[in-house]
Amino acid sequence: MQGNMMDVPLTVPFILERARTTYAAREVVSLLVAGRDEAGQPIAHRHSTTYGAVADRALRLGAGLLGLGLKPGDRVATLAVNSFRHLEAYLGVPSAGLVVHTVNIRLHPEQIAWILNHAEDRVLLIENVFAAMIPALKAACPLLEHIYVLGPTPQPIPLPGVSDYDTFVMAQEPLAQYPQIAETDAAAMCYTSGTTGNPKGVLYTHRSTVLHSLVSAPKDGLNVGEADTVMPIVPMFHVNAWGLPYTCAMYGAKQVFAGAFSDGRTLAGLLQNEAVTITAGVPTIWMGLLGELDRAKAEGQPYDLHALERLIVGGSAAPESLLRAFSDRHHLTMLHAWGMTETHPLGTASGVPAGVDPTSDEGFALRAKQGRAVPLVWLDLLSEEGQRLPHDGKTMGRLIARGPWIANSYFKGEGQSNFFELEGNLWFDTGDIATLDSRGYMHIQDRSKDLIKSGGEWISSVDLENAIMAHPAVAQCAVIAMDDPKWDERPLAVVVTQPGKSVTHEEIIDFIAPKFAKFWLPDATITAESIPIGATGKFLKREMREQYRDFKPGS
Amino acid sequence: MQGNMMDVPLTVPFILERARTTYAAREVVSLLVAGRDEAGQPIAHRHSTTYGAVADRALRLGAGLLGLGLKPGDRVATLAVNSFRHLEAYLGVPSAGLVVHTVNIRLHPEQIAWILNHAEDRVLLIENVFAAMIPALKAACPLLEHIYVLGPTPQPIPLPGVSDYDTFVMAQEPLAQYPQIAETDAAAMCYTSGTTGNPKGVLYTHRSTVLHSLVSAPKDGLNVGEADTVMPIVPMFHVNAWGLPYTCAMYGAKQVFAGAFSDGRTLAGLLQNEAVTITAGVPTIWMGLLGELDRAKAEGQPYDLHALERLIVGGSAAPESLLRAFSDRHHLTMLHAWGMTETHPLGTASGVPAGVDPTSDEGFALRAKQGRAVPLVWLDLLSEEGQRLPHDGKTMGRLIARGPWIANSYFKGEGQSNFFELEGNLWFDTGDIATLDSRGYMHIQDRSKDLIKSGGEWISSVDLENAIMAHPAVAQCAVIAMDDPKWDERPLAVVVTQPGKSVTHEEIIDFIAPKFAKFWLPDATITAESIPIGATGKFLKREMREQYRDFKPGS
Repeated sequence: MQGNMMDVPLTVPFILERARTTYAAREVVSLLVAGRDEAGQPIAHRHSTTYGAVADRALRLGAGLLGLGLKPGDRVATLAVNSFRHLEAYLGVPSAGLVVHTVNIRLHPEQIAWILNHAEDRVLLIENVFAAMIPALKAACPLLEHIYVLGPTPQPIPLPGVSDYDTFVMAQEPLAQYPQIAETDAAAMCYTSGTTGNPKGVLYTHRSTVLHSLVSAPKDGLNVGEADTVMPIVPMFHVNAWGLPYTCAMYGAKQVFAGAFSDGRTLAGLLQNEAVTITAGVPTIWMGLLGELDRAKAEGQPYDLHALERLIVGGSAAPESLLRAFSDRHHLTMLHAWGMTETHPLGTASGVPAGVDPTSDEGFALRAKQGRAVPLVWLDLLSEEGQRLPHDGKTMGRLIARGPWIANSYFKGEGQSNFFELEGNLWFDTGDIATLDSRGYMHIQDRSKDLIKSGGEWISSVDLENAIMAHPAVAQCAVIAMDDPKWDERPLAVVVTQPGKSVTHEEIIDFIAPKFAKFWLPDATITAESIPIGATGKFLKREMREQYRDFKPGS
Repeated sequence: MQGNMMDVPLTVPFILERARTTYAAREVVSLLVAGRDEAGQPIAHRHSTTYGAVADRALRLGAGLLGLGLKPGDRVATLAVNSFRHLEAYLGVPSAGLVVHTVNIRLHPEQIAWILNHAEDRVLLIENVFAAMIPALKAACPLLEHIYVLGPTPQPIPLPGVSDYDTFVMAQEPLAQYPQIAETDAAAMCYTSGTTGNPKGVLYTHRSTVLHSLVSAPKDGLNVGEADTVMPIVPMFHVNAWGLPYTCAMYGAKQVFAGAFSDGRTLAGLLQNEAVTITAGVPTIWMGLLGELDRAKAEGQPYDLHALERLIVGGSAAPESLLRAFSDRHHLTMLHAWGMTETHPLGTASGVPAGVDPTSDEGFALRAKQGRAVPLVWLDLLSEEGQRLPHDGKTMGRLIARGPWIANSYFKGEGQSNFFELEGNLWFDTGDIATLDSRGYMHIQDRSKDLIKSGGEWISSVDLENAIMAHPAVAQCAVIAMDDPKWDERPLAVVVTQPGKSVTHEEIIDFIAPKFAKFWLPDATITAESIPIGATGKFLKREMREQYRDFKPGS
């Protein structure tokens, strides 16, 4: 029997309208690049605006795009840093019935062109700092009709179809009426940064975007409210910056965008000066911030971060030692969240159950896991034979996910093997190897491709890395498989030491041996200058694996 | 263009599963009646269980109901107090594809029978304390096939079709698989307590129940999380106890049910002993609690309520003086929420914008309003001619609402005049007269039927009541219209004084005159023993209006 409730679709215009009216006066801060210093380094300029002004410009952008003849569902690409202009695109493009397609600026220009062509983008909004890429993209992307440059350029770009974004936007009247939008219509698009094969596009819907914002806000999610100041350091080209720009606009939190800056000193300064309460990024960003906080403290001029309630970490697992370092040395709380491009991304959020002290050993052990599924997300574990595995906190299995903001396919129907039916329901295969416990705590053990298979047993590279990174002489560590004639694969540790320190293989093994079965312990440790990092801030283990495949301990 | 997101319906089984697994160990406390003392007063017994056990029994209940031959959408009525058993019905009935129909226990038995017949309820779950009603209900309700009594009865009730609930539930195996449920299917049902005409049924959907839970949890909503202990004093027969039982189960908050008890002493004891963090009820309940807290403090034995973070007040407007009394005398924060049976109920939640001190004069003035619309709810004001009115914080208009958990009709299509189309969208006419300001703050001025129309101008009875209740000699106040030959209607104040105090009409007028235009001031004040209160705790102004219609000042 049908109920008596209104059929009101969940759509992005609701978020825009709320920012435009209820939170019109709330601030949006962006760090822009105002030229270069003598060393060629960018000079930062603090730009301040409001949700009211952002919403007004978003409606002008939407009207302008429709005026170009774009049709419902047409894609509008962004190649942009985190800023108020990118937020305008987040709100204005979907509210005009179009799809905002955020493209990863760290990819090679050829990959970018491939993605623009694959997505059939008709318009590109490109940050001024990447303007040098325009001629090549125009040449490689025949479907691209209009390019608008975000922010001032030293001189106009004399190419047909290339114009200034601000001029374009302010020449329009705000969209007077929202088009009819179904909640299952596409609102935003993001390509996975698949390390094998071509990138695949995921189309988020209006429904999934609104639901994701609702589920992100509660305190057991990301804890966003009007009184908060949120700085998403995770890039806006990467899974909607974990949805935070939408969540913040829906709940009226002040947003702070670091633009092209990601160094520890700039970030620490923003956290302090803007009184940020919530920030979010990948572990490598937090390692940089930790170094800066340590330096400032050692020099007797610590930052004042008393407003900062939580640092959200995701993208890769943060080792427990990093959580403890922020807690012990700076009284800061770091909390895991887990997700992927295909999960919008919020799949789990970390926290401790009622009654557990978050700074106790049990608390840290739980917080070093990825957390529990947020409401409406189902997680489960499958064996290699496709059988459900127990949720006992020990059994490793392939992590599968299901929920209203999890992909059911990729754009153009690619990659169908990642989606499968189980007992009548569709599930997404995350490609992660994880454990689940009876309370729902999920712990990523590895990407399935990075798992080390030794003598028929699985060894988690992530567990070993986290343990090794707790060693005081180690700054970073990646554990990879090397080929082994007897065991098929054996673990190899690649470490970057802390400045001025060194560490031997034996010291590493002595340090971690109490925590692991003997056969888990790496056969060798290599010290490296750095560990290669990909476009989304993760270790490029596949490259390392190729490099060290034939490494022989003792050689 | 369609997006790539999974089509996962938003349904109550998700909430049940989350309680059953993630929060299995979290406590559910109920105050039950364990007999009567010599004076005939109920003796309280503290019952403790867990979400895991509640969920298990909910699944047994669902299986048992389907075993009786109930079909999808069939209604299962409850006549019950707040307790873990009622929570089992909340979770188990909709998860079996049936509709849980909560019936107001304070109605006259004839009204109850009328509602059971109108809803075509096939099963009734009735609290043992109301068992005396069973023979009459059986006689009056031929569609009722099965009655289960919640809790022990002094002796078995020897009527066909009447059995013990616990025995019935525990004889079943838990439901092994959830039926297919569409998110627009009905999950729960509640009748309005319309003071004119027959009650009308509202059918909440699975979708609206899940969305309402999501939107209730954030800190700018009701602020519910796993670490919380929530005591909904608002009855579970009344608009799903403002959705709290579902919100708490979804987020793992401990729940405390006061059962048949609503006196200040019992409630204060529960708030203290269970370390309640969030509680919710109508103003009359809070007036009773305030009296008890004042008494205990005056006697030098104040309650320890340091855990209590917020008292949510709704159902009727709480006067600013009540908010200030809790804050000044007991350091407790009271926050408004506003809604109706037709709005599930959460329409607005109170709070102050970023940067405003909630205990400043501005903060209290804002908090005395009903708050701002929660996400996805749209509010607007219409003139008597159906034109939209400005959101200037001054212009009074008829409050209309639209959103995914707002009714589009009543059961069996009754009362269609409350729903109307405006610019292509369906809206619900709340029957409230309110103002809205530019930031979205909504302030109820009156029910449209209680508004006093004097010389062509509107006078808000609620505003006058709130001002008069701030007078130290006044405990309660209702302002109603009396007929007037010259002005059509004029305001009359009916007051209940504080124990041992008295107040004159002149003192009242002197006290409130600075706040109002002269023509708003009541022409007379009557002192009464009490103010009649209806089945949902609101003043019965319609009865009073009839009683005093012809009252003549000075007579």
